[in-house]
Amino acid sequence: MSRSMTAEERRAFLSEGTRTAKVSVTLKSGEPHVSPVWFLLDGDDLLFTTPADSVKARVLRRDPRVAVCVDLQEQPFAFVAVRGTAELDEDPEAVRSWTERIGARYGAAPSGTDTGSGPAPDDAYHRPPGVLVRVRAQRTTAVSYDDE
Amino acid sequence: MSRSMTAEERRAFLSEGTRTAKVSVTLKSGEPHVSPVWFLLDGDDLLFTTPADSVKARVLRRDPRVAVCVDLQEQPFAFVAVRGTAELDEDPEAVRSWTERIGARYGAAPSGTDTGSGPAPDDAYHRPPGVLVRVRAQRTTAVSYDDE
Repeated sequence: MSRSMTAEERRAFLSEGTRTAKVSVTLKSGEPHVSPVWFLLDGDDLLFTTPADSVKARVLRRDPRVAVCVDLQEQPFAFVAVRGTAELDEDPEAVRSWTERIGARYGAAPSGTDTGSGPAPDDAYHRPPGVLVRVRAQRTTAVSYDDE
Repeated sequence: MSRSMTAEERRAFLSEGTRTAKVSVTLKSGEPHVSPVWFLLDGDDLLFTTPADSVKARVLRRDPRVAVCVDLQEQPFAFVAVRGTAELDEDPEAVRSWTERIGARYGAAPSGTDTGSGPAPDDAYHRPPGVLVRVRAQRTTAVSYDDE
């Protein structure tokens, strides 16, 4: 049986452990694109950082529409799906500060210490971030399958 | 340090446990949409079922371009991102057979036993599936952060 999470449950779900957000944008061609990011909540906004030349950053500068999914990948399963608008901030101090806070959630090495030897395309975990993305939710679906 | 998975590692990663796939499509408005699905590999194709009237089914009938992300949400983190094309099959026997096989991976109740009392929009886990979606990968990124 499915049920909607309360707002409090939704925030707890999004903040638990090292859950990642799968961020979806629409490429100029109209093709969908989805990739994982580390994130934090700030109120009800989802915040992540990404390299200034990542697919996400380039697309969101042109078209701020974004969709995000966070889910529990085991029984009893649950997910939060957000459709919203991205606000980009390239202020170096804001980017640095949030990158450190986000990295602390996920147990990252200090920012800038690991850029990898051959990062994959749009591999935002291991290139220096240059953009802070704030996702303002416009529509949220938050579904749990437990028996509460 | 990031590295690309081998093809064998990628298939093992996608098949491990109850990992879900986050499936992204582009709505008619150009807005991105992403939601979680249960899936199985068939060779290198990703297969999932979805209600015939789900957002995914409706979009993919019109535009078969699809992006999929599967990730490990804890250290050392890893992800597979696929861009490809969806082939839809509405043959009831194919849908039933794959729904059962996929459900077996995730420990689902037999298909049709739980349609929920108030499923969320596009809640594909608990409405009767009507479409089998086969994602044929055209470009795959598979990144691991372990030290192998």
